[in-house]
Amino acid sequence: MISLADLKRRIENSELSADAALSQSLQAIDAHEQTVGAFVCRSKEPRAASCGPLRGIAVGVKDIIETSDLPTEMGTSIYKDFHPRADASIVTMLKMAGATVVGKTTTSAFASHDPTTTLNPRNHAHTPGGSSAGSAAAVAAGMIPLALGTQTGGSVIRPASFCGVAAIKPSYRLLPTVGIKCFSWTLDTVGLFAAGVEDLGIALSAITGRPELAMDALSRAPRIGVVTQEFAPKADAESEEALQTAVAAVRRAGASVQRPKLPDLISQAYRIHPVIMAFEAHRALAWEYHGHRGDIAPELRAYLDKTVDIPQSAYDAAQSIALRAGTSLIDAFCDLDVLLTFSAPGAAPKGLTSTGDPRFNRVWTLLGTPCVNVPVIIANGRLPVGVQVIARPGEDATALSAARFIEDALRRHTS
Amino acid sequence: MISLADLKRRIENSELSADAALSQSLQAIDAHEQTVGAFVCRSKEPRAASCGPLRGIAVGVKDIIETSDLPTEMGTSIYKDFHPRADASIVTMLKMAGATVVGKTTTSAFASHDPTTTLNPRNHAHTPGGSSAGSAAAVAAGMIPLALGTQTGGSVIRPASFCGVAAIKPSYRLLPTVGIKCFSWTLDTVGLFAAGVEDLGIALSAITGRPELAMDALSRAPRIGVVTQEFAPKADAESEEALQTAVAAVRRAGASVQRPKLPDLISQAYRIHPVIMAFEAHRALAWEYHGHRGDIAPELRAYLDKTVDIPQSAYDAAQSIALRAGTSLIDAFCDLDVLLTFSAPGAAPKGLTSTGDPRFNRVWTLLGTPCVNVPVIIANGRLPVGVQVIARPGEDATALSAARFIEDALRRHTS
Repeated sequence: MISLADLKRRIENSELSADAALSQSLQAIDAHEQTVGAFVCRSKEPRAASCGPLRGIAVGVKDIIETSDLPTEMGTSIYKDFHPRADASIVTMLKMAGATVVGKTTTSAFASHDPTTTLNPRNHAHTPGGSSAGSAAAVAAGMIPLALGTQTGGSVIRPASFCGVAAIKPSYRLLPTVGIKCFSWTLDTVGLFAAGVEDLGIALSAITGRPELAMDALSRAPRIGVVTQEFAPKADAESEEALQTAVAAVRRAGASVQRPKLPDLISQAYRIHPVIMAFEAHRALAWEYHGHRGDIAPELRAYLDKTVDIPQSAYDAAQSIALRAGTSLIDAFCDLDVLLTFSAPGAAPKGLTSTGDPRFNRVWTLLGTPCVNVPVIIANGRLPVGVQVIARPGEDATALSAARFIEDALRRHTS
Repeated sequence: MISLADLKRRIENSELSADAALSQSLQAIDAHEQTVGAFVCRSKEPRAASCGPLRGIAVGVKDIIETSDLPTEMGTSIYKDFHPRADASIVTMLKMAGATVVGKTTTSAFASHDPTTTLNPRNHAHTPGGSSAGSAAAVAAGMIPLALGTQTGGSVIRPASFCGVAAIKPSYRLLPTVGIKCFSWTLDTVGLFAAGVEDLGIALSAITGRPELAMDALSRAPRIGVVTQEFAPKADAESEEALQTAVAAVRRAGASVQRPKLPDLISQAYRIHPVIMAFEAHRALAWEYHGHRGDIAPELRAYLDKTVDIPQSAYDAAQSIALRAGTSLIDAFCDLDVLLTFSAPGAAPKGLTSTGDPRFNRVWTLLGTPCVNVPVIIANGRLPVGVQVIARPGEDATALSAARFIEDALRRHTS
């Protein structure tokens, strides 16, 4: 994989030009794209910027994120050849930081569940996950050092785990969603994929102009609460192994590890996430569903058909639970810096018929917490499995620092 | 003005066809549009729906709201001839309820402050206000029974007061903003204009599918707290008179009237609204500001130039105040159903060089409360002045019921 941190250091030390850094990515795309299929379209003549902290950094942009100079097709024929007038805010912010958009990456239709044709670069017989399939795969295949995804259920953390890359779903609205196709306004969150956790911090800091996101927020070993989200169906053995491996490594590295019990409101929030998502999706996709139902991808269409009658009262009750669950996070994080849990129920499923299950991600999306995937083990069949680091809303720097501690601990304390 | 409630009753009683109701609006537009200038473009061959609670109802849609069959130009040359692929969610929801979009209404560029060329139908020498200028003016001129606007500072309630029409800015996210050009994701709220308060309730109920919004939420005279928002510069004599007139009328009609003191956090929230608005506008309009600054309307450009350096820390602090101010509403509404205050600092300013001042609206936009304008007096120079009714977030039915009580009281108890 291409290390953003390494490229940046070499560019800043004049060991590498921004043009050469960009060329390296373009050549890597030429080499791997035909096999992996991570891109929907590529920029015509991408050029490196001459300044900005991310100059020379090639970025892939999930194709539900609008771009003024590339079509934005949302993974659906309904948006075939759609040319937005403007760049989404996050795209302009990336460009202002010096990054170069090299193409649009594949996405499930409207960032929902229908699989794309993208292969998992670690094992071509398996899905890269979704809905941010192309972004996770392009980083994992070593084509680009940075990619944008979005998460409404588990569309950033899950594919990152499946593909063995680092990823962050930041706090709700740390990154703007302006110019991104909405599925659920309460849930949709922009996220980043990169080779390692340091890369994520550098990119997030450069995009937002918040220097603290690239710095160590913890002056000591983190206090970690390990949770297994018993409110969800059990994880597979691979995910259990990844979590145990991470816990053993951080213990050896000096972190304190507790096993807190999550407040009951978190379980309730887990249960009502689907109500909020479906209710809002019916409104966000109202034009598509009522005018173009036949052209909506089959899984999403079936999902919308099945959820058409959610009453207002169920939605209102769900929002009320979400509000109270947010307050209960104070108890969940008592005396802890971060929570540590599964990133996904297991390794990437075989075949391209499913993008996997977001059940270990969705409550954290609803609660707006920063979540970071750290790759941990390579399970049978060359399939990576990661763990998920979660901090309080607004404490993205803490999540990144603890994730980096875990990444370091794994490097030092596992064979 | 055209009463939506009256049209609907006549259509449902088969006294009027939906086609005839729509024709009445189209003829009224033909008669008044050349003078008032409320529309940017008109639908080619608008047709009445055969079913739905709003069949036969002609609607004007503010031109920052995307439409699949009409251009959406955002009040700026930067979006000249822009044709979105989809309808905004609120447009599809209106159509699903049977309403007919008859055209796009004028807006300040990006729903900010630059005046449009629309005249105030009550007095052509004055502004109709902004940014939802065309929507307020089209309803006031009797062209259409319903129009959509948006409010980030005071862009719905203020023009409604200036034009002498009823309007509601509902609770935050009661109506989706999907497909509407964003200025500030924390603040932007879709609103409705109509001839009277009953019309607003009927329309809001039909669009959302929430029957309670068209029903009386109060089984008794409302408990009203009169507030004059001392944290803002003083209102003019006309607005003082409108408020006193409304208070006298509701007292005579049997409402209890108190003069509560607003918690200090509300004053703080008033002060930080501009920080949140400007910080988010710089991100929401990043592509426009960095790529097309010279084409941005002069007032908005000057505003963006002036606010370019708001630090992240100021924004974070402002969001923290907003959160705490929201909690303090419990105290603000203690033993009260609604608050009653100014809709604007005075009557519509003379000329078309200013759209007026949102200072009595902005904190309520930030707090996400439902706000309703009720027209009260006609000041010197044939200029209407209204009052603003405010309820707790989520209590839109209470706001509408109290507003209707005030409207009735004014009808019965003023000469």
